[in-house]
Amino acid sequence: MKLWDKGVSVDKAVEQFTVGNDYELDKHLVKHDCRASIAHARMLKKMGVLSKEELRKTEAGLQEILELSAKGKFAILPEDEDCHTAIENFLTKKYGEVGKKIHTCRSRNDQVLTALRLYEKEALSDTKKLLCDFQKQLGETATKNSTVPLPGYTHMQKAMPTTVGVWLGSFVHAAADDVLFLNAVAKMIDQNPLGSAASFGVPVFAVDKKMTAKEMGFSRVMENPLHAQMSRGKFEMTIASLLTQIMLDMNHLATDLMLFSMQEFGFVSLPVEFCTGSSIMPQKKNPDVLELARAKYHVVVGEEMKIKGIVGNLMSGYNRDMQLTKEPLMNAFEITKFTLSIMTPVVSGMTVNVEKCKKAMTPELYATEEAYKLVKGDLPFREAYRLVGEKYGGS
Amino acid sequence: MKLWDKGVSVDKAVEQFTVGNDYELDKHLVKHDCRASIAHARMLKKMGVLSKEELRKTEAGLQEILELSAKGKFAILPEDEDCHTAIENFLTKKYGEVGKKIHTCRSRNDQVLTALRLYEKEALSDTKKLLCDFQKQLGETATKNSTVPLPGYTHMQKAMPTTVGVWLGSFVHAAADDVLFLNAVAKMIDQNPLGSAASFGVPVFAVDKKMTAKEMGFSRVMENPLHAQMSRGKFEMTIASLLTQIMLDMNHLATDLMLFSMQEFGFVSLPVEFCTGSSIMPQKKNPDVLELARAKYHVVVGEEMKIKGIVGNLMSGYNRDMQLTKEPLMNAFEITKFTLSIMTPVVSGMTVNVEKCKKAMTPELYATEEAYKLVKGDLPFREAYRLVGEKYGGS
Amino acid sequence: MKLWDKGVSVDKAVEQFTVGNDYELDKHLVKHDCRASIAHARMLKKMGVLSKEELRKTEAGLQEILELSAKGKFAILPEDEDCHTAIENFLTKKYGEVGKKIHTCRSRNDQVLTALRLYEKEALSDTKKLLCDFQKQLGETATKNSTVPLPGYTHMQKAMPTTVGVWLGSFVHAAADDVLFLNAVAKMIDQNPLGSAASFGVPVFAVDKKMTAKEMGFSRVMENPLHAQMSRGKFEMTIASLLTQIMLDMNHLATDLMLFSMQEFGFVSLPVEFCTGSSIMPQKKNPDVLELARAKYHVVVGEEMKIKGIVGNLMSGYNRDMQLTKEPLMNAFEITKFTLSIMTPVVSGMTVNVEKCKKAMTPELYATEEAYKLVKGDLPFREAYRLVGEKYGGS
Amino acid sequence: MKLWDKGVSVDKAVEQFTVGNDYELDKHLVKHDCRASIAHARMLKKMGVLSKEELRKTEAGLQEILELSAKGKFAILPEDEDCHTAIENFLTKKYGEVGKKIHTCRSRNDQVLTALRLYEKEALSDTKKLLCDFQKQLGETATKNSTVPLPGYTHMQKAMPTTVGVWLGSFVHAAADDVLFLNAVAKMIDQNPLGSAASFGVPVFAVDKKMTAKEMGFSRVMENPLHAQMSRGKFEMTIASLLTQIMLDMNHLATDLMLFSMQEFGFVSLPVEFCTGSSIMPQKKNPDVLELARAKYHVVVGEEMKIKGIVGNLMSGYNRDMQLTKEPLMNAFEITKFTLSIMTPVVSGMTVNVEKCKKAMTPELYATEEAYKLVKGDLPFREAYRLVGEKYGGS
Repeated sequence: MKLWDKGVSVDKAVEQFTVGNDYELDKHLVKHDCRASIAHARMLKKMGVLSKEELRKTEAGLQEILELSAKGKFAILPEDEDCHTAIENFLTKKYGEVGKKIHTCRSRNDQVLTALRLYEKEALSDTKKLLCDFQKQLGETATKNSTVPLPGYTHMQKAMPTTVGVWLGSFVHAAADDVLFLNAVAKMIDQNPLGSAASFGVPVFAVDKKMTAKEMGFSRVMENPLHAQMSRGKFEMTIASLLTQIMLDMNHLATDLMLFSMQEFGFVSLPVEFCTGSSIMPQKKNPDVLELARAKYHVVVGEEMKIKGIVGNLMSGYNRDMQLTKEPLMNAFEITKFTLSIMTPVVSGMTVNVEKCKKAMTPELYATEEAYKLVKGDLPFREAYRLVGEKYGGS
Repeated sequence: MKLWDKGVSVDKAVEQFTVGNDYELDKHLVKHDCRASIAHARMLKKMGVLSKEELRKTEAGLQEILELSAKGKFAILPEDEDCHTAIENFLTKKYGEVGKKIHTCRSRNDQVLTALRLYEKEALSDTKKLLCDFQKQLGETATKNSTVPLPGYTHMQKAMPTTVGVWLGSFVHAAADDVLFLNAVAKMIDQNPLGSAASFGVPVFAVDKKMTAKEMGFSRVMENPLHAQMSRGKFEMTIASLLTQIMLDMNHLATDLMLFSMQEFGFVSLPVEFCTGSSIMPQKKNPDVLELARAKYHVVVGEEMKIKGIVGNLMSGYNRDMQLTKEPLMNAFEITKFTLSIMTPVVSGMTVNVEKCKKAMTPELYATEEAYKLVKGDLPFREAYRLVGEKYGGS
Repeated sequence: MKLWDKGVSVDKAVEQFTVGNDYELDKHLVKHDCRASIAHARMLKKMGVLSKEELRKTEAGLQEILELSAKGKFAILPEDEDCHTAIENFLTKKYGEVGKKIHTCRSRNDQVLTALRLYEKEALSDTKKLLCDFQKQLGETATKNSTVPLPGYTHMQKAMPTTVGVWLGSFVHAAADDVLFLNAVAKMIDQNPLGSAASFGVPVFAVDKKMTAKEMGFSRVMENPLHAQMSRGKFEMTIASLLTQIMLDMNHLATDLMLFSMQEFGFVSLPVEFCTGSSIMPQKKNPDVLELARAKYHVVVGEEMKIKGIVGNLMSGYNRDMQLTKEPLMNAFEITKFTLSIMTPVVSGMTVNVEKCKKAMTPELYATEEAYKLVKGDLPFREAYRLVGEKYGGS
Repeated sequence: MKLWDKGVSVDKAVEQFTVGNDYELDKHLVKHDCRASIAHARMLKKMGVLSKEELRKTEAGLQEILELSAKGKFAILPEDEDCHTAIENFLTKKYGEVGKKIHTCRSRNDQVLTALRLYEKEALSDTKKLLCDFQKQLGETATKNSTVPLPGYTHMQKAMPTTVGVWLGSFVHAAADDVLFLNAVAKMIDQNPLGSAASFGVPVFAVDKKMTAKEMGFSRVMENPLHAQMSRGKFEMTIASLLTQIMLDMNHLATDLMLFSMQEFGFVSLPVEFCTGSSIMPQKKNPDVLELARAKYHVVVGEEMKIKGIVGNLMSGYNRDMQLTKEPLMNAFEITKFTLSIMTPVVSGMTVNVEKCKKAMTPELYATEEAYKLVKGDLPFREAYRLVGEKYGGS
């Protein structure tokens, strides 16, 4: 039974159109909704809406769901619509009245929002951990090869000498920028939206947002209920921007690695277990993992775009459109986390081919150095540049 | 067993990262791959690679898969990677040698491409049918209400009088533009890519692309194998543009319907079975279907963007990145078809509230008409405009 | 004086915010607006709104503007807002009454729309010509080098042998697909929107859309005025999709050329006049033109996205938002035309380094051929594949 | 003369294609480049490359340019390519040798990057100021109308009672989120890239990045030169994400204001000086400023997308593609700043129509309140919900 089912028969297709794959996505939200529901129930107890015994039952029920869910045994069926209804139905069925009371002083709108924010906080924390692991591994591989020479390219042309250490080290610094951004996003979203109800707060009852914030680990409270609701999609699009930023580093590293492992360069060799073969060409060893890491940057950008498109031109207050920001957000998180976790062993497993690197250090890479030595000998730079330029001809 | 499995143990995570959800998406491709494989097998027979008996067996096997698949009983497991391997494995297991021969003279690259193009041709045809149904229903509802007056708005302000017939009729014409575009896209992609192999054609054997084209119903052949491969993603992005164009009409109609069914307008009432309730507000009747139709335009735009991002900056020849264009394309098709199919009954079921429409025809809507009557009486337009403007209060 | 100026003082900033750079963009529209205005004036004459003498004066005035504009001497000032007002003001100032009458039976909305569609028709025709020139040049260079061998790459790894002829030829075929799409778009937009006025047609007077269509060279008429208005942005987004498709070919060709002209490949040399130097490195010869051609694909995608974002969630009838689709459209056209015109001489001027191409034809490129020879000798493909695979070292 | 001009005649079209409108955009960069060049010159003096007298001359020259530029009198011509060359040419022409020396120990790549980062720091600071002004004004208008009742809408349907104070207050909170994000971005980009040269640092000489950082007011130094170069585009895309976030608030406020000022609502009236008229309809008062503010959100999203597309799939080291991230970034800044500055007086000038707001407070808005009163009287929520739902029927 749907929460809003008041007897009108609703066409099956409408159900499928509106529910979409929420019932699948929501497996990510069950534990967060339980956590939020426990906080909410405790507040209802304090407010006198639930008795001590009712709270005990509610907590026991939610605890049971948490345990089932951890074992992958809490099913959300299409007819449940989403995890929130599945949870309420479970409680009502097994614990009676308390299931009917738990929804007092909240709306599905703020319930979803709260569970999502808890999910996001956890997913950001997971992402940060994976990003730091990746950064650490990069640092180790960079250090190990810090003095191996490498041609530096600009405009895809040999430019000046550099080292494998500088090259890989640049990604260590890039990851540090990402961590900084991640911390800021984590701080921005760390606000309790519970109590905003449908978008305009809870009438009659005085909800205690600070209490639920404390229970759930939010450091601030969203005082204005409409602000809370309109942060839906907006915070998500900014999280997606962060994930895009992280994925750009993956894209750049994958691009470099694919180029540098081409037969024509040979600077690095990829770990064989990260490559695949061809169905027609027996000799192939293809860097599929890297190609997909490169492409997934664009997938995350597309997810970000969905969110940015969906939330535009909407009037204040909840709009169902916002529901469709959930999937792109979750997809962006899953992709980013998976890509980080797979690029780390790529970096640890790759081999730097020192001889090939050395052989690639051809004379024109040192042209700027030559010019600068003339400058040191007191020629103005523009004249030294012209002199050396003539020597390397074609240029 | 993977096609490219030559003994190297491949990390489970790599498998999951590279396979992704292809094994799920490919349920859409099974029948198309079978059809293409039958065409391919017949050509192999003609070339002498398969004997008459081997062709019979192959066709029987593929027919069996087609029937299993139609009943939803042909499983593609994650360890199969995709439908193409699942099909080859099924043949080999049940029919022996022939399974090992069917892949002669093709690569998974052109095999996937061919199945995709057959899928696209069918999906375009389905979309066209749904679009024409929608257009027909719109035409009927427009005709039925052709003389009901309606305020015409510009800049979201009452502008000039119009009718429900003109308003809904505008979407009939819009759909006609879409059909024109759809036909062009269908024509553009109607080219047989089979025989392009990995990207560079088939060595040693002379494949007969015209024969397979005829078998599969393509009207032209892709002569250049690299052209065939590089059309991957490119044709898909243009199909996505078409779907975006169609979805824009859905977005606009949904936007109008939601506005005109607000209590403040009341021009139309939505069929109750397309609305849902609220978990907190007992009085609500929400146009969720329309909100989602509006939002899904942006989702399709996001899918289009993914494809456009993925295919940029790639060198010629197959790149694994291209695999990731499959999901956005299929998703865009599914969304568009579903939205069309649900908007048709919305249009047939909606009620035009004639009295409310009439009541909304306030005098300022006729200001231009007044001015034009003065013009007819020989006043230059700019002076008539000024006179009437003053009457309606400078606004 | 603004057309809508009825004495209210409008803040300078508002003017700048609303006018934007329309007065600059509109230099592209002057001739098209004049052409449309002549057609409109002739219809007004036929309707009796203009006398024969007034028509003569109007035509003389518009002809004068056409000539001034062709010489770059018809100025549109920020205070004119746009070319339409500049033209009307010019007529009124120099020819008196007729300037005040020309706006009868039309609105700025359909006036802009008509001029835009004429601009688009011309720009599409220009684009087609440039695309065909490019295609022709590609064909010539491909033919000249048709037998030069070239490694074919998949997954950025050497895969199978191909030729420069096949490689460049693939772009000839790609351009043919683009022409097909271009023709369809040209057909879709070839509809006369004049007479749709503000969005709801012209009251009192019966405008003759067929007459103006014939005068302006449109092959069809937009019967429904709201359809005409709502095609604004929609047709433009589809034109932008076409331009994106064309630019993708430029992006791919530039990507290939940059890679193949790296020192590590050396398959082609770029014409020196299309390269630039470095301010610090005296030896550099950078393929800036190609880098920019590659990047401009993404710029056009961004312009397309602007249009697709702007037109979403808008209610039927003109919305000022639509004005902002003009700049991205024009920018996309300018970029595409310029890129086509500069890539043509790049293709004609590039040198194929036959020796380097030959030297790159290493044995593993022929592995598939070897396997296929075994197949011809009656080994099932999968076994031949395994045998040859072992020879080339499992890789 | 171009910096890289070494005698090769470069086709005029190539110049136009590569320079684009940099020479126009760079008027925003002149002062920042001068500031960076002064810092650089002081370091060169400390390193002994410039004498005391040469430094004096250089500083005088740069000071002169700063003053000319402040008066709008420092011209950058197309043949200069960009402001950096224009500045160097000016110095060389007027001060001789020193102009030729200033480019020692830097490349145009890090020179542009440094000027851009200084520009961005200033533009972020300007944006923050405008955002805070906007927030302050919103707060005042919210407070002034804090108790005026307003229907709260969800799903574009009347939902629950709220107030003008809550509605406008929600944007005050939203702006606070933006400030938080802005501060984080400002911190992320506050790193000195000067000394990274072409992408691989400066050979022979030991540049003092800390000294120039201090001179220019950067709080940190980019130690890794390749990190510095690859932050180009990446930092810019994240700045664009921030601007998109801010513009979303503008979009939402504009959407609300346009809806609430429709005749059918009448909750607010817009200041007349922010509206425009129609060329055909004498009675119109159109909210063009708001329509454009709404649309400009999508324009900024498009600019963001350009950057995100351009930087993908690029190998490490400077690529000319990066140049094309400059215009979208600057455009996004200009749009955001202008929109903020025009929305502030819209908020201060708008009128809340108290009577119309009160009249709109129809009974169904209080349905949830009724249900909650029953809950307080001890009915479980789901039963109270059903009872009240029946009363309001249609729901």
